[in-house]
Amino acid sequence: MKLASLKAGGRDGTLIVVDRALRSWVAVPEIAATLQQAIDDWSNCAPRLNAVSEALNAGGRGDARSLDFAALAAPFPRAFEFVDGSAYLPHVERVRRARGAEVPESFYTDPLMYQATAAGFLGPRDPVYAASEDQGIDFEAEVVVVTDDVPMGVDADEAAGHIQLIGLVNDVSLRNLIPDELAKGFGFLQSKPRSALSPVLVTPDEAGDAWRDSVLRLPLRSWLNGERFGEPDAGVDMQFNFARLIAHAARTRPLAAGTLVGSGTVANQDESVGASCLAERRMLEIIAEGRPRTPFMSFGDSLRIEMLDERGASIFGAIEQVVRRYAVLP
Amino acid sequence: MKLASLKAGGRDGTLIVVDRALRSWVAVPEIAATLQQAIDDWSNCAPRLNAVSEALNAGGRGDARSLDFAALAAPFPRAFEFVDGSAYLPHVERVRRARGAEVPESFYTDPLMYQATAAGFLGPRDPVYAASEDQGIDFEAEVVVVTDDVPMGVDADEAAGHIQLIGLVNDVSLRNLIPDELAKGFGFLQSKPRSALSPVLVTPDEAGDAWRDSVLRLPLRSWLNGERFGEPDAGVDMQFNFARLIAHAARTRPLAAGTLVGSGTVANQDESVGASCLAERRMLEIIAEGRPRTPFMSFGDSLRIEMLDERGASIFGAIEQVVRRYAVLP
Repeated sequence: MKLASLKAGGRDGTLIVVDRALRSWVAVPEIAATLQQAIDDWSNCAPRLNAVSEALNAGGRGDARSLDFAALAAPFPRAFEFVDGSAYLPHVERVRRARGAEVPESFYTDPLMYQATAAGFLGPRDPVYAASEDQGIDFEAEVVVVTDDVPMGVDADEAAGHIQLIGLVNDVSLRNLIPDELAKGFGFLQSKPRSALSPVLVTPDEAGDAWRDSVLRLPLRSWLNGERFGEPDAGVDMQFNFARLIAHAARTRPLAAGTLVGSGTVANQDESVGASCLAERRMLEIIAEGRPRTPFMSFGDSLRIEMLDERGASIFGAIEQVVRRYAVLP
Repeated sequence: MKLASLKAGGRDGTLIVVDRALRSWVAVPEIAATLQQAIDDWSNCAPRLNAVSEALNAGGRGDARSLDFAALAAPFPRAFEFVDGSAYLPHVERVRRARGAEVPESFYTDPLMYQATAAGFLGPRDPVYAASEDQGIDFEAEVVVVTDDVPMGVDADEAAGHIQLIGLVNDVSLRNLIPDELAKGFGFLQSKPRSALSPVLVTPDEAGDAWRDSVLRLPLRSWLNGERFGEPDAGVDMQFNFARLIAHAARTRPLAAGTLVGSGTVANQDESVGASCLAERRMLEIIAEGRPRTPFMSFGDSLRIEMLDERGASIFGAIEQVVRRYAVLP
């Protein structure tokens, strides 16, 4: 099934079930008002939501309404936890190679993850607001999964069973704030503002055979200002699958129901497939030509992130955002 | 007024108003079921909660019930955002001096803050579970404030007006996991598990004259296994007040209603007042004697954190926790 949230209805929006073709929806107040409520009681809600989904896909819901992507909030307009990995090592290798640094051996066996902000996710058509182009505005196309309650100390095998939903995320990054912030030693805060989620999150069965061993095995496509930017395969070069990432995050604490776990920027060793963020394209330019040619994003630039199944149908809908200047009101 | 949450009532507990003496309480379902609901609609809920508080303190609530600290969850059993500062520079200076490192000049003008986990806060009497004593189990006694909605880009003056509640936090730290985790460059994840909050959060007026210029000016007292451990004054040596910390965190994004902002471990230049964490006492021992004498916490060790007003009354109630061994169930 495919789940989304309308902006209408309050800070957590209104949970809706969306049909497979992303054309119609029904609300489900008799099951759960919000997606957080549903994931809080997933074993009870999931079968009931699934029955609604089946009826909707079979054309059996006369009350179905037409889907307007602009009316959608993020499926989780706010969440309690977002831990983001950096599981595609080609991304890490390129960034380091460009500045002549080695990738530590441990990076191949110990996942790199960080605590990200979860308090507000942008909707799939919301602008990315930034105060200045000098901050180095960038996107990062990633896959994300959502867990139910994960006990502290789970191993990867057990963690796999806690993945309930899959989606896409645009992990907005302010590149020019990163060096100084990371130099302080405590990770990202100002340099990683709010991220955007795909229009819908889906249960793993919606990805069919493309979801195997806690890896989503399809190209993740992105466009910048209408031009194809990259299409690395999310099933290639993922050093740590989502089960490993979950186990890493849960080593010293449980994960709450509705925790989002990100893959990190999808990247392949094969450079011909392009990148999933501007920083990486710029790094490839530095490696090839000594300096970057592609600028970071400007106000008015647009971005699109989408994943298609083997038949060319959009699984999650597209994230489509425009960068806008943020001004503090007087 | 003083607000708390009963464990009973679901994942977010049940909001209660507690009397000034921390002896009795009433639930307020007619106003808000949970503290998150109240802070989401603070301008409407706060005056109504305050009226209940005044009646309770005046002895005018015949339905008041006796307070049992063990029945309390954290006031926010789960929250959407926790950003923790490191505003007491003596703490930073000592930790660095012990290993012969300088404190960068920028640390005196640019707050050091990190994204912390907010998805689950321990109640004031909950155990701290850890898998191994080898992880270097430590506490950190801090002051924390809670904001309503903070717009992106606020300055410190404006930020001050968004502080709605004050409390204490035990920022549990696994010291022996920190060096390797910080060396990876992306901040704390496994080394900072769930934190505990004080029994109640209070509006700033409850602190009287001790709350001035977004700083809480009273000693923060801690005990280890029943022995007085430290009592540094939270009003001394706080390099950045809470308004500055909020403005720092909100530079590139809004803060959601119910965001917790931590002060960092309270520490004074005056070493005679002791410390608010074991790491710092160990650092003072290293500086004085070349090596630490005090071990980190063992299973069974107990901890108490409390702040008294000028008349000796507990403002927030005490955080009292015991460290317990965590075992993964087969």
